Amino acid sequence: MYKILLLNGPNLNLLGIREPEIYGTITLKDIEETVKQRGAAIGVEVRAAQHNSEGAMVDAIHDALRWASGIILNAGAYTHYSIAIRDAIASVRVPTVEVHITNVHAREPFRHRSVLAPVTIGQVVGFGIYGYIMALDGLVHYLNDTSAARIE
Amino acid sequence: MYKILLLNGPNLNLLGIREPEIYGTITLKDIEETVKQRGAAIGVEVRAAQHNSEGAMVDAIHDALRWASGIILNAGAYTHYSIAIRDAIASVRVPTVEVHITNVHAREPFRHRSVLAPVTIGQVVGFGIYGYIMALDGLVHYLNDTSAARIE
Amino acid sequence: MYKILLLNGPNLNLLGIREPEIYGTITLKDIEETVKQRGAAIGVEVRAAQHNSEGAMVDAIHDALRWASGIILNAGAYTHYSIAIRDAIASVRVPTVEVHITNVHAREPFRHRSVLAPVTIGQVVGFGIYGYIMALDGLVHYLNDTSAARIE
Amino acid sequence: MYKILLLNGPNLNLLGIREPEIYGTITLKDIEETVKQRGAAIGVEVRAAQHNSEGAMVDAIHDALRWASGIILNAGAYTHYSIAIRDAIASVRVPTVEVHITNVHAREPFRHRSVLAPVTIGQVVGFGIYGYIMALDGLVHYLNDTSAARIE
Amino acid sequence: MYKILLLNGPNLNLLGIREPEIYGTITLKDIEETVKQRGAAIGVEVRAAQHNSEGAMVDAIHDALRWASGIILNAGAYTHYSIAIRDAIASVRVPTVEVHITNVHAREPFRHRSVLAPVTIGQVVGFGIYGYIMALDGLVHYLNDTSAARIE
Amino acid sequence: MYKILLLNGPNLNLLGIREPEIYGTITLKDIEETVKQRGAAIGVEVRAAQHNSEGAMVDAIHDALRWASGIILNAGAYTHYSIAIRDAIASVRVPTVEVHITNVHAREPFRHRSVLAPVTIGQVVGFGIYGYIMALDGLVHYLNDTSAARIE
Amino acid sequence: MYKILLLNGPNLNLLGIREPEIYGTITLKDIEETVKQRGAAIGVEVRAAQHNSEGAMVDAIHDALRWASGIILNAGAYTHYSIAIRDAIASVRVPTVEVHITNVHAREPFRHRSVLAPVTIGQVVGFGIYGYIMALDGLVHYLNDTSAARIE
Amino acid sequence: MYKILLLNGPNLNLLGIREPEIYGTITLKDIEETVKQRGAAIGVEVRAAQHNSEGAMVDAIHDALRWASGIILNAGAYTHYSIAIRDAIASVRVPTVEVHITNVHAREPFRHRSVLAPVTIGQVVGFGIYGYIMALDGLVHYLNDTSAARIE
Amino acid sequence: MYKILLLNGPNLNLLGIREPEIYGTITLKDIEETVKQRGAAIGVEVRAAQHNSEGAMVDAIHDALRWASGIILNAGAYTHYSIAIRDAIASVRVPTVEVHITNVHAREPFRHRSVLAPVTIGQVVGFGIYGYIMALDGLVHYLNDTSAARIE
Amino acid sequence: MYKILLLNGPNLNLLGIREPEIYGTITLKDIEETVKQRGAAIGVEVRAAQHNSEGAMVDAIHDALRWASGIILNAGAYTHYSIAIRDAIASVRVPTVEVHITNVHAREPFRHRSVLAPVTIGQVVGFGIYGYIMALDGLVHYLNDTSAARIE
Amino acid sequence: MYKILLLNGPNLNLLGIREPEIYGTITLKDIEETVKQRGAAIGVEVRAAQHNSEGAMVDAIHDALRWASGIILNAGAYTHYSIAIRDAIASVRVPTVEVHITNVHAREPFRHRSVLAPVTIGQVVGFGIYGYIMALDGLVHYLNDTSAARIE
Amino acid sequence: MYKILLLNGPNLNLLGIREPEIYGTITLKDIEETVKQRGAAIGVEVRAAQHNSEGAMVDAIHDALRWASGIILNAGAYTHYSIAIRDAIASVRVPTVEVHITNVHAREPFRHRSVLAPVTIGQVVGFGIYGYIMALDGLVHYLNDTSAARIE
Repeated sequence: MYKILLLNGPNLNLLGIREPEIYGTITLKDIEETVKQRGAAIGVEVRAAQHNSEGAMVDAIHDALRWASGIILNAGAYTHYSIAIRDAIASVRVPTVEVHITNVHAREPFRHRSVLAPVTIGQVVGFGIYGYIMALDGLVHYLNDTSAARIE
Repeated sequence: MYKILLLNGPNLNLLGIREPEIYGTITLKDIEETVKQRGAAIGVEVRAAQHNSEGAMVDAIHDALRWASGIILNAGAYTHYSIAIRDAIASVRVPTVEVHITNVHAREPFRHRSVLAPVTIGQVVGFGIYGYIMALDGLVHYLNDTSAARIE
Repeated sequence: MYKILLLNGPNLNLLGIREPEIYGTITLKDIEETVKQRGAAIGVEVRAAQHNSEGAMVDAIHDALRWASGIILNAGAYTHYSIAIRDAIASVRVPTVEVHITNVHAREPFRHRSVLAPVTIGQVVGFGIYGYIMALDGLVHYLNDTSAARIE
Repeated sequence: MYKILLLNGPNLNLLGIREPEIYGTITLKDIEETVKQRGAAIGVEVRAAQHNSEGAMVDAIHDALRWASGIILNAGAYTHYSIAIRDAIASVRVPTVEVHITNVHAREPFRHRSVLAPVTIGQVVGFGIYGYIMALDGLVHYLNDTSAARIE
Repeated sequence: MYKILLLNGPNLNLLGIREPEIYGTITLKDIEETVKQRGAAIGVEVRAAQHNSEGAMVDAIHDALRWASGIILNAGAYTHYSIAIRDAIASVRVPTVEVHITNVHAREPFRHRSVLAPVTIGQVVGFGIYGYIMALDGLVHYLNDTSAARIE
Repeated sequence: MYKILLLNGPNLNLLGIREPEIYGTITLKDIEETVKQRGAAIGVEVRAAQHNSEGAMVDAIHDALRWASGIILNAGAYTHYSIAIRDAIASVRVPTVEVHITNVHAREPFRHRSVLAPVTIGQVVGFGIYGYIMALDGLVHYLNDTSAARIE
Repeated sequence: MYKILLLNGPNLNLLGIREPEIYGTITLKDIEETVKQRGAAIGVEVRAAQHNSEGAMVDAIHDALRWASGIILNAGAYTHYSIAIRDAIASVRVPTVEVHITNVHAREPFRHRSVLAPVTIGQVVGFGIYGYIMALDGLVHYLNDTSAARIE
Repeated sequence: MYKILLLNGPNLNLLGIREPEIYGTITLKDIEETVKQRGAAIGVEVRAAQHNSEGAMVDAIHDALRWASGIILNAGAYTHYSIAIRDAIASVRVPTVEVHITNVHAREPFRHRSVLAPVTIGQVVGFGIYGYIMALDGLVHYLNDTSAARIE
Repeated sequence: MYKILLLNGPNLNLLGIREPEIYGTITLKDIEETVKQRGAAIGVEVRAAQHNSEGAMVDAIHDALRWASGIILNAGAYTHYSIAIRDAIASVRVPTVEVHITNVHAREPFRHRSVLAPVTIGQVVGFGIYGYIMALDGLVHYLNDTSAARIE
Repeated sequence: MYKILLLNGPNLNLLGIREPEIYGTITLKDIEETVKQRGAAIGVEVRAAQHNSEGAMVDAIHDALRWASGIILNAGAYTHYSIAIRDAIASVRVPTVEVHITNVHAREPFRHRSVLAPVTIGQVVGFGIYGYIMALDGLVHYLNDTSAARIE
Repeated sequence: MYKILLLNGPNLNLLGIREPEIYGTITLKDIEETVKQRGAAIGVEVRAAQHNSEGAMVDAIHDALRWASGIILNAGAYTHYSIAIRDAIASVRVPTVEVHITNVHAREPFRHRSVLAPVTIGQVVGFGIYGYIMALDGLVHYLNDTSAARIE
Repeated sequence: MYKILLLNGPNLNLLGIREPEIYGTITLKDIEETVKQRGAAIGVEVRAAQHNSEGAMVDAIHDALRWASGIILNAGAYTHYSIAIRDAIASVRVPTVEVHITNVHAREPFRHRSVLAPVTIGQVVGFGIYGYIMALDGLVHYLNDTSAARIE
């Protein structure tokens, strides 16, 4: 049975509280519940965490090394400049999927670049909160597909 | 019942024939069949096309305006410079999902930029051919989610 | 009697069908008719063509070498990157006027640069479909003005 | 009856006096007369001005706010760096057409960029002094076309 | 016996017809004949093709996968931006030599960069049409030199 | 009665202790007292906080959503790269004024750019610690000026 | 008793006349009166000037050398490129405060850079016309604070 | 007797646990012990700390102001973007030596730039964990060399 | 007998009045007198002018077309961005020598580039006010050297 | 009878001694012999030289002015930055062919640019040491082809 | 017993003679003696050389291939642009340590980049002449540490 | 009595031999004689040298430290990239004047930048070989003007 870390970054705790015209009215709690349920339905345990601090996110990724089969990561603003989080992912080598709720490529230019993308399996971008479900699906498929080539 | 255009771009007809260490041994025909079957299973008709010519891809997108509810698009190399395909997507306004088999952000720098991304709903990147299934899933979810805000 | 090629590029066949808030409701057929009539009124034969394919546009420009006194060209998206079309214009040396329906300099930055402009006589930009009439006027004036210096 | 300001910028007073191999032998006075006559022929009053000073050009554009329906502007060298003239055009909101006698896109790179273009209706570039007539034509068509979408 | 594809790109069909001061008066037909004869003399079959369309060039390269030992490629303008042709070469892995008739490094800056060069064996640049003969010579030497390290 | 968060970022706790030739001898405690007193004099409650951690600053801004009418922010070094803090300000939509003690535009180039500025009301730069008083004044004026257009 | 030059640059004479949705309905005359009154209230004489010409602004700054204790400067568009005005400020060494009515950092990128900022005391940006009052306040505080380090 | 802070940054706690082919199998604990012993051997007290959080590193540097003669710093990923840590070093003015285990100049381009380097004494790069010993040696030599010019 | 225009640009009227540590205590009047006397000594009439306005400098250059054999030009800050002055020099074709009192290449980067240099004969940079004498010497030598190739 | 200088640059004396997996095991002596023999076979005298010093290479090119009909040049690392060698080639005007053993366009980016290419006849790149033979062939063809246009 | 080449580049022969405020009063001879003595003390033979010529430095590195176990290299100004020296180091594969006396990262930007760094073991920067001792120490440790991964 | 080193760089030994349409027919010997005679006439001894090697130029500048009061330097191509020569000038601190025969700012862009300029007194550019006389004049004036501020 896989165990997956669902890790959200800075400001995502405000989901559903502010800027509903961009992010909708669903809260982070709702998202975490939805992903956990979907996980349960397919026999995967999902543990959720959210941090505003870059260092705390690094800690969480390190901790995942002990127990997690994979990580679903929406690093928020850190996506664009946190080499520390990138190094954490590259160091622990826990397969990681990057999620963005909005289509970041249609927003400000500084949101187009992800310093994390090169060390992840892949990205799911622009599908709203449903993207977390897609990421879970893709990550589990990746973990099951033992015959496929790995990035490691 | 939704009808979806599965549109692949240049060189993707060689899938499974060349460079298996990057793209695996599954052919484009296999992929098209798999997506059609998955579509059939959820009541969606999928029609597949592949073109090496930029103009032919523009034509196919124009044609989709007549009949398609959505497009799953892997524009291959054109992803990185075809403003003509971008304009085609923007003009027909058929919801489009961008797929890349490999994690393009971990390859050469010129593959990091997509000129198409800003006019699509979202991207699914790096999940191998399973990414087409994820894209179908995300696209149908998008089409069903009539309450959600639209990019149009 | 001059013979003029009116050549439109990718996605311009959708004029009047999509994005009327940008391009209005007049179709490409309407434009072609209007320019032909204006041509007829001043004793100029106008032949119209539209292609979504870069190669087909190159072919059309090559073909003009056989019969045309000048070209009115709206190369659409190819304006911004098709060195092949630029080389075609430079090679056939048929005087060419570049037209853009919208004021491209007030749109996305990648639309500001024209790789074609240096090998054309001049540009008419931002006057809507009336720009084609202005281009015809300017091109005929250019062809008549035998005393003027030529770009060749 | 429309009243139009024909405004020329720095060094254009030397037209016909120096560099005839680039600009021909016609003087600025000749151009102004030609445009005025063409205007008179179609019931439009044209008033001409030329200034070498950026501030005087800003003043002239401000003054146009009182009386002019439109502006035909060849800002010469200021085209490439005068944000002050750009702001003047944007502030008075008198429809403005940008003219360049030569095909600036075939000259030095620093002449390719116009800081004014985004706040004008459009540009007529490369048609020699006939471009002023084309600009008058295009501007009057724009003013008459009350059904068309406006940039304001 | 080696079979070689001699593939020329956009506008090269105009060779000998236009711009003789740059490219001379020899036609593409002449070049193709010359290379075929030289090939015959050394026991190599040369098949020639020319396309103005990027997609058709990709098709021709794919087709070469079936029968050709090597490709002599002058991709013309596509040299500078066609990642699709680059991917085609990289995918079929047929050894390819890049030829340019003129010394592109002494022309406009945008002609200095070749997106194809990294996936070819090498380049022969600036020797006029004789460069095709040199390329044939180099390609055959490459194919014969089985002891040498390969880029594949 | 307005409640204002006075939020200082990394290294500002060293004010008055180190580098007096740049920042003077007044401590952060002194500044906070001065702003609080000035606030009290005009009927505004000022609460002060200082954090060296980016995440703690995000937390403080989130917390302000519960109680504060406005924020006076000197984000120190984070000004130049913390998209996380920018997103926090943009999300909570509490009117924020940016303060810099020194004239950052006369220091190293990397201090010239503020990623926060676009989501603030305005900036007060270079007036030493008196800038905090000016910021308080400007913020209160902004809050009182209910007739003025808002950035929200 | 301090004497202050309130110097406004190009297009600011249109304040309150055009673009009220950006700049409001208050005229430059109103602003000048308000600042003068506030000055009078604190025993400072304010003299106002506005010029559209870069050279006239340089002259005004030179003239201030004779009589003024400080300058409040909104150089409008010249802020972004006038090295001549920068040199004037640097040469006369009259303490100068830079004001911008709108938050220029939230507008077009070319408005983000101030070539004047490095030679001023500081900037007050984004507080509407109230920013002039804040600038007066900050400038007088600066002039009174004889113990503080000076930029000279 | 000197007291030295040995400060390691994000992900360095994973040393010896992950990526041994890059960093070897020695743990951070081992390194800290080795440096402490070497310190003891030459009469220098070494205190070690490691933090994944940027803010915690700033705190540690501030704290060093109270007790430390010098700092040996491997800031990990923060090396490349943490202006906050740079400002901390510059503010406390405790002589600091920068260490990198690997030859960062032979890795990804974003690892070539150190925003910290300009405010340190010097750098020891690429000598593996032995670099910490070299740094200790260089730092002590620097502290003893009272006749040498200081960066302060 | 040659007549030479000695033309100085913005802020040079402050020479000898401000910033003596950079420019010395000699006034512009002194310089003009010195150059006139040196001119008289070698049979050359020198007329001096100084303007702070870009437009006035353009006017002065135009006026020189009527009477001057050459121009000695220190365009001050306009050196770095005034394409209008560049065009004026290029249009009137009066041989022009560029002078800078200080070694601008050892000052701020934005002073390193001269947009005027390509249309002048040459530059004399960094010799203080003696540079004007050297420029007069070089200009007269140029005018006398009728056998030499000209830039025109 | 032609005399050709075969000139190799820095580090090429190590050929066959070091890095055989890149350059093979053939020594520079072998290459020089091979080219001389091939030259002898076609009635061309080849003289070989190799220098590690940029100045010595300039000297050799100057010397060639006295006796050589052409130069075959592999300037090694100097290819990428030696404007001195470029100027030497441009000054002596002895037809020069540039050779690179490896496909430099598939190596580090700093090896992609040749500052020499614009002043040579052409380049032969990527054919291993056989490229020298191809260069000799192309150079002799160029020298014989007296009817062809020359770059001079 | 190891033999080490201590190789210094251009201008380093002036050490102790000029610019003592930057480099101190110790001469190159002193440094060479010190390093030799330290070498002798640990059983390592150090041979010293200094060259102002790039080619002579390449020669010295080639020569080291015959006898040296390692190189301590301060390439002076060549550090920043000599690809020839880089290629020499890469070709001979003699382990090389890069030394800089001053903290080059705190000097002009063009001194921040080392084209040599990627092909060296590591760098010792900013420790004054003591850095040579540290480099010797690090190099010998590297040579002794036969169990460690090598860059070759 | 002053002693001056007249130092010319690479390819300048070809003056008068090649490219007379750019540099004229006067040889370097002629120039050296002319400058020596002019020197003799004003009581200055001029010693001339020319080197194609960067290292030899560094040596010559070092040697000048022993005997020369100043240097007249035309470093040819090295002007644009030789940091070694720049460092030599900066180290010996012998006042140096930079000369260029042609107006390098009107030639290729890579000739616009001088890495030497910031460490010289000034530049004389574009006056043909007469520029050497002007440089001698300026240098002697500089040496005599003991009251003037020095760059040292």
